[in-house]
Amino acid sequence: MGDLTLFTYDWVPEAPRGYVRDLRVRWALEEAGLPYRVKGVPFRERDAGHFSHQPFGQVPWLTDGDLSIFESGAILLYLGHLSNALLPTDTRARSEAVAWLFAALNSVEMASLPWSLFVFSGYSPETPEWKRFDGFLESRLKHLEPVLAGREWLAGTFSIADILMADVLRLVDRFERLAEHPACRGYVSRATARPSFLQAHSDQMAHFASADETTTSQLSSR
Amino acid sequence: MGDLTLFTYDWVPEAPRGYVRDLRVRWALEEAGLPYRVKGVPFRERDAGHFSHQPFGQVPWLTDGDLSIFESGAILLYLGHLSNALLPTDTRARSEAVAWLFAALNSVEMASLPWSLFVFSGYSPETPEWKRFDGFLESRLKHLEPVLAGREWLAGTFSIADILMADVLRLVDRFERLAEHPACRGYVSRATARPSFLQAHSDQMAHFASADETTTSQLSSR
Repeated sequence: MGDLTLFTYDWVPEAPRGYVRDLRVRWALEEAGLPYRVKGVPFRERDAGHFSHQPFGQVPWLTDGDLSIFESGAILLYLGHLSNALLPTDTRARSEAVAWLFAALNSVEMASLPWSLFVFSGYSPETPEWKRFDGFLESRLKHLEPVLAGREWLAGTFSIADILMADVLRLVDRFERLAEHPACRGYVSRATARPSFLQAHSDQMAHFASADETTTSQLSSR
Repeated sequence: MGDLTLFTYDWVPEAPRGYVRDLRVRWALEEAGLPYRVKGVPFRERDAGHFSHQPFGQVPWLTDGDLSIFESGAILLYLGHLSNALLPTDTRARSEAVAWLFAALNSVEMASLPWSLFVFSGYSPETPEWKRFDGFLESRLKHLEPVLAGREWLAGTFSIADILMADVLRLVDRFERLAEHPACRGYVSRATARPSFLQAHSDQMAHFASADETTTSQLSSR
């Protein structure tokens, strides 16, 4: 430990800024107060080096010395074992946090991501496909609502489970889908009001904005 | 450890039999040779007790004494720490296995599950929605293919990452979607030829079949 480097794209279009998954890792690193560097890799031309770290050609990945880890869930779990600020120390609470971490990715995001693909691409709310995927998302939100109405954070104290769940729900909230799920919405507000989120978000926005300036200056110097 | 109980539904309709997610847990338990019991909970009427163990009203969950764990990914990770048959002991290989475990759930199944919802519900291969979700799945399979062409198992030796990845791909293969991805298809064949899979699969089929008999005998005694 002590040589953490986060890899993300050097640039992305406007729309996904603030939602690229390196945000989840930045958020955890800020929450834990762990020192780290950020390196950009080409968004447009992904080379063999990129695929050797991230087999699907995506971001983020994290290196810690010689170790290289991909998948935001795996990276957050790794960081959780480096800092008690990210995972409860009590066995039962820790186990609960890990279960909720998987629930965020494999139960909630499993429903919210296909739903968001419909939203992004323009859709008709009348089609059976839309209704099926909106119903799938609702089947998760309706059970999450009473859970989040009864507790501040998923596993007692704030943990990597909350970083993932809040980041997943944040995208759903962006499209006003939490209007009838006030506990889910309140949870997103609570999580994203943390200084660690605000720092991570502002750093990601600045990272991609500085790439715009580089591109502009390269163009104007031609 | 030593008091492992796996909870699944007491009955499910014919179609999902052999694919209910308790199979992933049975497979890991068989692979590790860990003793366990299986208990059925009602499929049709899910009570507050069910939701207290599995917040979305799904299965499986696993108890180990007083500890109760939901999400198949979290359960397999827990079992991975109980048995060296399920996770490599070498730090680097273990980290790789955990990354692939998340990749199976959050990169590959994230694409295959919405795809399968289209297949299950009848669909027209001409719609833009179908093309979008089929393309999403292809964006994962095309990068997985060279990985699986180059290695027997994802992290050197067989691990929980392979149980999850093979189970995810098995459903894709069922609908002939791996025909142009021979390495993925070979990997599924290799994984599902293991005695641990065959036992787990046959046990799940027998579990649900015995529920049919119970239902039949209850009906005939009325």
